[in-house]
Amino acid sequence: MENQRPLILVSNDDGITAKGISELIKFLRPLGEIVVMAPDMARSGTACSLTVKEPIHYQLLRKEVGLTVYKCSGTPADCVKLAFHTVLDRKPSLVVGGINHGDNSAVNVHYSGTMGVVMEGCLKGVPSIGFSICSHDPNADFEPAGEYIRDLARKVLEKGLPALTCLNVNIPAVKELKGVRVCRQTKGQWVNEWENFAHKDDAHYYWLTGNFENAEPDNEETDHWALDNGYIAITPTTVDVTAYGLMDELKSWF
Amino acid sequence: MENQRPLILVSNDDGITAKGISELIKFLRPLGEIVVMAPDMARSGTACSLTVKEPIHYQLLRKEVGLTVYKCSGTPADCVKLAFHTVLDRKPSLVVGGINHGDNSAVNVHYSGTMGVVMEGCLKGVPSIGFSICSHDPNADFEPAGEYIRDLARKVLEKGLPALTCLNVNIPAVKELKGVRVCRQTKGQWVNEWENFAHKDDAHYYWLTGNFENAEPDNEETDHWALDNGYIAITPTTVDVTAYGLMDELKSWF
Repeated sequence: MENQRPLILVSNDDGITAKGISELIKFLRPLGEIVVMAPDMARSGTACSLTVKEPIHYQLLRKEVGLTVYKCSGTPADCVKLAFHTVLDRKPSLVVGGINHGDNSAVNVHYSGTMGVVMEGCLKGVPSIGFSICSHDPNADFEPAGEYIRDLARKVLEKGLPALTCLNVNIPAVKELKGVRVCRQTKGQWVNEWENFAHKDDAHYYWLTGNFENAEPDNEETDHWALDNGYIAITPTTVDVTAYGLMDELKSWF
Repeated sequence: MENQRPLILVSNDDGITAKGISELIKFLRPLGEIVVMAPDMARSGTACSLTVKEPIHYQLLRKEVGLTVYKCSGTPADCVKLAFHTVLDRKPSLVVGGINHGDNSAVNVHYSGTMGVVMEGCLKGVPSIGFSICSHDPNADFEPAGEYIRDLARKVLEKGLPALTCLNVNIPAVKELKGVRVCRQTKGQWVNEWENFAHKDDAHYYWLTGNFENAEPDNEETDHWALDNGYIAITPTTVDVTAYGLMDELKSWF
């Protein structure tokens, strides 16, 4: 029966009109019933943020066999929470965020609204994957990644993921992908982060910008190495952020 | 010399006018030179979000011996990034977020703007601590926690914290604290998260609300157990969110 196909919830942070989410829907449709609840405008850099100071609203945009699309005025994490509460008639088998226009590897995982979708899905107990392409081009070419994306989503539908664990998948913007690499988060930090300008004689205005300084550019285990070398980087990611390794030492402080 | 005292950067997510940040500054002043860069309004639930679609602005509010206070139009994480780029004349010895009006234990760590401050400080390579009290009362009584907060900040100044590791400290809102417990993040999830209402004949408006369902209420290792039993919960927290335990299994998929 139609309603026994896997149910897949899709959202993003670039908003419902972005090419990345349309492409993602196209790649995933053969795998199941798709419900989309995506922000009504771009929500980049919103991490796992929630809308707490005002109400949010959602609206049906279209419904056809196998695909229902809603837009929502909330953040990416709001979209997932609200979809679970309202439009999903059963627990989904998969939550997917993306495809983000821009890299969410390394420390970017903490700022990413796409990963906000994914971490929220994971916190709801559903296997969740975020896909991002290393290009901010609104018309980026997602086609080379299509088969990889569908294959990974199919594998996760079949095998599941452990509790509190999701996948952060970054895709180099190249024509010829070399394959996939399972990676860890690259160590490094953003530098030169602000562009200063004056407005009405006030010199204290700043636009966010910056460069990522990779602290371990030659380490083949990292997501950046994979991306720099033409591979899709699959970084398993936990939502249990307890630093277990420090617990005994900390206890000795008291 | 004055400028050789430890430099401590303070921010929060309730905004510069909240009682919690004033109390935090009071508790920390004996330990060093304090610079505050805090949001100009409440920014609860903003996680590690960044302002990417518009410029941000900061402004000096006051300067006295040992204390300089700025307000900023950005998110908590923006505040930390901008302070490092602009007003700090050297790398701080400590970044402190809070004291948040409201619990940031368990999964709330992912939504918390207070922890956005702390995770950003940690990503900058500085020992960082977030303090939150389990009360949304704007006039909450922080006094019972004062000595504990100063003591923990002093210990972190002395001993440091490992790279990529920070502290998430939650404080029960009680007169008589029983002491501190080093904990891990409680497993569980938010339920009944939305309050629905209609506006102008449109029934699809929702306010965020909800209850946290603790999946392990009797587990003495968890932050919730500590809080429920009158202890300050200190949860060591990592910003390396790689799920190392899944890497080998994932590699076997390809």
